[in-house]
Amino acid sequence: MSKDMSITPDEKVTPLQDEVSCRSESDDLKINAQMYRDQGCQVVAVQGLGFVGSAVAAAVASSRDMDGTPLYYVIGVDLPTIEGYRKVVKLNQGEVPVGSSDPELSKLTSHAVLEVGNLQATSSEEAYSLADIVIVDVPLDIADRTEFDPTQIDVELDGFKAAIKSVGCFMQSDALVLVETTVPFGVSEEYILPILRRERSQRGISEPVQLAHSYERVMPGSKHISSIRQNWRTFAGVDRSSAEKARRFLSSFIDTEAYPLTELEDIKAAELAKLLENSYRVVNIALIHEWTLLAEQLGLNLFAIIDSIRVRKGTHDNIRYPGFGVGGYCLPKDPLLAQWSSTRLQGSDIVLQMTLDAMRINYNLPLHSVDLLRELSGNALAGKTIGICGISYLPDVADTRNSPAELLVDELLDAGANVIAHDPSVDVWPERPTVELVQDLARCLAEVDGVIFGVRHREYSDLDIDILANMMPQPLFIVDASDAIPDEKAQALHRAGYRLLGIGKGHWRKLGFQIADQR
Amino acid sequence: MSKDMSITPDEKVTPLQDEVSCRSESDDLKINAQMYRDQGCQVVAVQGLGFVGSAVAAAVASSRDMDGTPLYYVIGVDLPTIEGYRKVVKLNQGEVPVGSSDPELSKLTSHAVLEVGNLQATSSEEAYSLADIVIVDVPLDIADRTEFDPTQIDVELDGFKAAIKSVGCFMQSDALVLVETTVPFGVSEEYILPILRRERSQRGISEPVQLAHSYERVMPGSKHISSIRQNWRTFAGVDRSSAEKARRFLSSFIDTEAYPLTELEDIKAAELAKLLENSYRVVNIALIHEWTLLAEQLGLNLFAIIDSIRVRKGTHDNIRYPGFGVGGYCLPKDPLLAQWSSTRLQGSDIVLQMTLDAMRINYNLPLHSVDLLRELSGNALAGKTIGICGISYLPDVADTRNSPAELLVDELLDAGANVIAHDPSVDVWPERPTVELVQDLARCLAEVDGVIFGVRHREYSDLDIDILANMMPQPLFIVDASDAIPDEKAQALHRAGYRLLGIGKGHWRKLGFQIADQR
Repeated sequence: MSKDMSITPDEKVTPLQDEVSCRSESDDLKINAQMYRDQGCQVVAVQGLGFVGSAVAAAVASSRDMDGTPLYYVIGVDLPTIEGYRKVVKLNQGEVPVGSSDPELSKLTSHAVLEVGNLQATSSEEAYSLADIVIVDVPLDIADRTEFDPTQIDVELDGFKAAIKSVGCFMQSDALVLVETTVPFGVSEEYILPILRRERSQRGISEPVQLAHSYERVMPGSKHISSIRQNWRTFAGVDRSSAEKARRFLSSFIDTEAYPLTELEDIKAAELAKLLENSYRVVNIALIHEWTLLAEQLGLNLFAIIDSIRVRKGTHDNIRYPGFGVGGYCLPKDPLLAQWSSTRLQGSDIVLQMTLDAMRINYNLPLHSVDLLRELSGNALAGKTIGICGISYLPDVADTRNSPAELLVDELLDAGANVIAHDPSVDVWPERPTVELVQDLARCLAEVDGVIFGVRHREYSDLDIDILANMMPQPLFIVDASDAIPDEKAQALHRAGYRLLGIGKGHWRKLGFQIADQR
Repeated sequence: MSKDMSITPDEKVTPLQDEVSCRSESDDLKINAQMYRDQGCQVVAVQGLGFVGSAVAAAVASSRDMDGTPLYYVIGVDLPTIEGYRKVVKLNQGEVPVGSSDPELSKLTSHAVLEVGNLQATSSEEAYSLADIVIVDVPLDIADRTEFDPTQIDVELDGFKAAIKSVGCFMQSDALVLVETTVPFGVSEEYILPILRRERSQRGISEPVQLAHSYERVMPGSKHISSIRQNWRTFAGVDRSSAEKARRFLSSFIDTEAYPLTELEDIKAAELAKLLENSYRVVNIALIHEWTLLAEQLGLNLFAIIDSIRVRKGTHDNIRYPGFGVGGYCLPKDPLLAQWSSTRLQGSDIVLQMTLDAMRINYNLPLHSVDLLRELSGNALAGKTIGICGISYLPDVADTRNSPAELLVDELLDAGANVIAHDPSVDVWPERPTVELVQDLARCLAEVDGVIFGVRHREYSDLDIDILANMMPQPLFIVDASDAIPDEKAQALHRAGYRLLGIGKGHWRKLGFQIADQR
């Protein structure tokens, strides 16, 4: 198994592969695939090496039979673009292609690539021709995440359709295509099947397409790989054979004893399930917003109230806490995919009004933090420097995709404020490249007039109050938008001269923390 | 302990008590209270003998110390109205004053009243003068449950205020008043405290009022009493002493080892918690409605989809199933109490828009069943006789308060249909007294053109398909609005000539169950 790549071992930035290396890599894959096949392994191609594909590839490659022999030879495939090449090279070096804070994922990846050798990456789509199973983990996004009008919502399908086409161009006649990408319901029947049929028929293949859908529930962060292996899965196939193949395959790398599979009868039902489960989440986040505003006006601690409700296990423990906003890849788009599908793909007249209202509310959530910052600044944000602590969308995760901090920054800049951002685990903020981003909290706090804790990173919640006070010049104001500051710390900070407000923390207002301490 | 009442032992209908019997009963209570007090018991008065008060009274009366000695002498108090007298007499006969299907509640009640003698009822408000603790379990309702305009929502407070006043007129200076009634937040501070202070000050009492709020989570049905004793409780007091008294008291009749108490710092927070937990429920029911309509159009089984989502314990298992509608005492009013309080009591500008939207959607839920009935009738409901199976608001519960069947009936009658209602456990439908109500399912089904299963009573879900088919003449149409008919039965019924539609059961439509079988 050759691992020589078109890069020098000490080079961090990856040069593009040339045709020659591609071709030789392709031959390598063929030889390896045959070798593993001879040993009784199946060959799996994973299309797309993003947050999902790179973890799924590692999970599948680490799957073993009773004797400890690998069950699969896994080929990760990404596009022949700069970003795609970068991922391919990174994986072939034994590294996780995406930013991941999960040591288990790193270990499994490096073990599979560098020690066992049953995980390799390529940018050649010919790899699909080697596979018994092709897993589709490519992006499918909404055109504009701020468009909530049912008639205007649009979906970017071109990349996804091209990906499916490339599978159809090369796949074996009896291979299973397992789509894990979250899609608008109906996409399997309206796009994937027709595209695969057309491509295969041009190649003279007349056997029925074997296709299944099983959306992923991957969570970036410290449990990245276990969010695949120790997690529930729903699946459905276009026919019995596809469903059975999918069941066997999923069972081979997911702990289905602890997390049983659920089969749905209709592939459209499986597609819809993902959109509904995220819409459920979205609506429940939005619901809490109006009660957050209320609790803040009434001087009540909504966190304590919600804790008192969440004790009702089984009926009320999914109620959400107040928060800064919603980000990530799924929640800001999945409900829109559902509405698009309803209106544009299925021609239905049904408007998911509560779901869309919730999407609009959630998109605008960070504006409430701007209001609190404005209040603490004495309605004078212009010229003030605001520190944004936490720009990822989850605590202790480096992922900044669709972070609510984006809207916060935009609004603050519009109001004439200067912005410095801090995040302990983010060193580049691709979505807001012009914002000054520091990784030293002390440096950030030393320069600001006011600060907002947008994400409950451990560095913030663990912060010693004296150290914090030392870092911050006076008079400084603080918005806790992520329950990062417990009451005692807030009390101490207020006594030390800081003015504070907190999302959902009406009791702070009742205690007068927003006013300068008169002592 | 005299139990002689102003009724003859064999008489079922209860005559009104006259003044003399009231007076002698009052003396009885005084003597008994003193006797129990001498034995170390505290005296508890429970104001209001409805679904909550009658169960709370039994739970408190059944509380024992380590030696098995009763901890409390309990006096249930209801109004000197016909309905109030009826409850008082019923309780004094050892029976649960409200319809209850919980054998444990019946047993505890009869044991406490007839054997131990530490539970008695009266319509004399003087009873409050005997009590160490007064529990308030009286109704507090919204004026119009169909009014969702924040500026128009109104609350009927007169009865509640009068009840509090009567406690203030008679209560001991150091008694604890524990309010279990669900109230708009702010009512303790704006009404209860001022009323009690005024009444007490007129009596020369200057000690601070001891007041706590701890809303109940009673569920009528087979677990009526355990919904008090084995259930979580939140509480808050107006001061430390009130909170501590409330904690000790609640711990004495609730299994707080298994269901720990939660104390909130602010009495308004405890009031709000109940309204938020029911608003959470309301919004989640409404959310599923739009996905129900969608699934039905798409031909998908939403129950199966939701089952596949609910496996996600801890984050998604509170997602609701499709349903016929929302009823009962709490869900159709609590969110409106919250909006009333926000706008009218607290003078806030906050509109709980998602919550109100959900209330409106839920109120109108039964109209979707009317649509399905209309479709199956060939858009010709006029002159058809429709059987409504299930008029309570919960399976296997006799409670018809605010049942969604009310709106269904109104709409069907408006459309010119005739209506027969069936419910195995309801013999009077006070909210719709003119509707013919039968308790024999066969008789109901024999007379109808179409039937709707609105509640999943066991009698319906257990029904043998052959018996069902025998009961129903052809051509009959069936709407399953409560997941009462499993797929195999639906298939068999369709083969037998029936036409069916089901709420959330899009797959039935895809299978053509709504069309007459051509065989």
